[in-house]
Amino acid sequence: MALGLARCLPPEDLVICVNTGDDDTFHGLHVSPDLDTIMYTLSGLSNQETGWGVAGDTFTALEMLKRFGVDAWFNLGDRDLATHIRRTQLLNEGKTLSEVTAELNLSLGVLHHVTPMSDDPVKTVLSTDEGELPMQQYFVGRRAEPKVTAVRYIGAETAKVSPGFEKAITGAWMLVLCPSNPYLSLGPILALPGVRQRLRAFPGKKVCVSPIVGGDAVKGPAGKIMAELGKQVSCVEIAREYRDICDVLVMDVQDQNLVSEIEAMDIMPLVTSTIMETEEHKIALAREILALAD
Amino acid sequence: MALGLARCLPPEDLVICVNTGDDDTFHGLHVSPDLDTIMYTLSGLSNQETGWGVAGDTFTALEMLKRFGVDAWFNLGDRDLATHIRRTQLLNEGKTLSEVTAELNLSLGVLHHVTPMSDDPVKTVLSTDEGELPMQQYFVGRRAEPKVTAVRYIGAETAKVSPGFEKAITGAWMLVLCPSNPYLSLGPILALPGVRQRLRAFPGKKVCVSPIVGGDAVKGPAGKIMAELGKQVSCVEIAREYRDICDVLVMDVQDQNLVSEIEAMDIMPLVTSTIMETEEHKIALAREILALAD
Repeated sequence: MALGLARCLPPEDLVICVNTGDDDTFHGLHVSPDLDTIMYTLSGLSNQETGWGVAGDTFTALEMLKRFGVDAWFNLGDRDLATHIRRTQLLNEGKTLSEVTAELNLSLGVLHHVTPMSDDPVKTVLSTDEGELPMQQYFVGRRAEPKVTAVRYIGAETAKVSPGFEKAITGAWMLVLCPSNPYLSLGPILALPGVRQRLRAFPGKKVCVSPIVGGDAVKGPAGKIMAELGKQVSCVEIAREYRDICDVLVMDVQDQNLVSEIEAMDIMPLVTSTIMETEEHKIALAREILALAD
Repeated sequence: MALGLARCLPPEDLVICVNTGDDDTFHGLHVSPDLDTIMYTLSGLSNQETGWGVAGDTFTALEMLKRFGVDAWFNLGDRDLATHIRRTQLLNEGKTLSEVTAELNLSLGVLHHVTPMSDDPVKTVLSTDEGELPMQQYFVGRRAEPKVTAVRYIGAETAKVSPGFEKAITGAWMLVLCPSNPYLSLGPILALPGVRQRLRAFPGKKVCVSPIVGGDAVKGPAGKIMAELGKQVSCVEIAREYRDICDVLVMDVQDQNLVSEIEAMDIMPLVTSTIMETEEHKIALAREILALAD
């Protein structure tokens, strides 16, 4: 979705605000999985088969790290490692995550503004039937298999909104909640102090793209977690989740039968094809969304 | 030479004390070139063609680091990077360089005791016609081309001898100064507080293997630097350098004609083949040296 929007808008017209609740430290290196996925996607480096990392990456350093007896369940390719080495170095030199993110993206030719949600640490932790698990441990280490009973965002109460996110909340003419996991991707962003209230008061059009299509998530464990939390796995639940910050719900043609339920919530449904398999799909959906602007 | 000694002696009978004046930080990672060369050599991983790094290593991460605009004149392979990542992580966790070195070596199956000369930072800096250059900048960055006028070991005055080195000085039955650059490899070790005096008083046999053969260094810039410092480039100068801590000078058959000059310094010459091209050569020379024990 972010790629589609970036293809439709000049750099100065788009801020991509990214979840950092997944950030973690591996082998002493600061890893920001969501920021990297966005950066690799926008720079054309992303591995589209796996959905993470750099296309064609090798794992030579990780194999050697394993010889040193480290727990290497988190796959880090050699090119990807370079990103984490550089990020960690710049952070240790005293730069903020926003500054580092800007520098890394620019180096790879990404001109659009990619910003972490916050420069302060926030840690998404899941309460599961296997105990408390940090996001990557749950998602990668345990393949999202444990049953989730609650999600917390440690540090969110005191974390400050990043300068880039601040600027966007204040000055943007449209808000797009991209199709993302409500608890693991959008949740941490919305948990930051004042964000929800400020988005409620946001004057521009607020559009939410449902990640749930035909009763399950298009990608990832969002559907599974919704069910485990006792929620209805449908775009209606998504609308309910964002009711206070959503003027338009972009929902898939497969969910046509749910239109009246959305309308009943005073949300305008936009029924279209939301499955984005190619860059053309992403651009087409972005165009439809941008056409909603006042 | 260290490999030869390690092949002849059981782990409990050998301490390999290594220069850390070359240590430097690249991309935020702590690199210990001499410790790594020893570790890779003893573990059978070393690249024997280049004399540094891991055999067959790739440079994928470094290529990516270059895309992030870093100054990547110091070649770091992917496997080698894993070593530096792990070392840096353990140091940041509060372990000493001695502890980290022991852990890394053990992980790679090196059972002999490899110890840094000190756990405190010492920085070898060369005064040259291009200004002051840290060791790696001189050696790798400028390919040892600048003319050297002096060598300093910053931090050596206050650095403490490492526990492993301490134990060896106190308890060993023989001291071998391996064929090494007198200013860049042995110099930093001998500059540590009290080391020279204590080696003078060392009760066991003290053996020095000349790195100069037939008027030049077998490897590296030792001969060039000796000439630039106005010294005679010969094993006689080596004997002069270590006169107070050397009972026996191991010198090459090519330098047979210099025997009387060595003897005149009250040092016993051991004339033999000192060029070590194969592991067999290394073992043979180590055997000859160990036979000198009282």
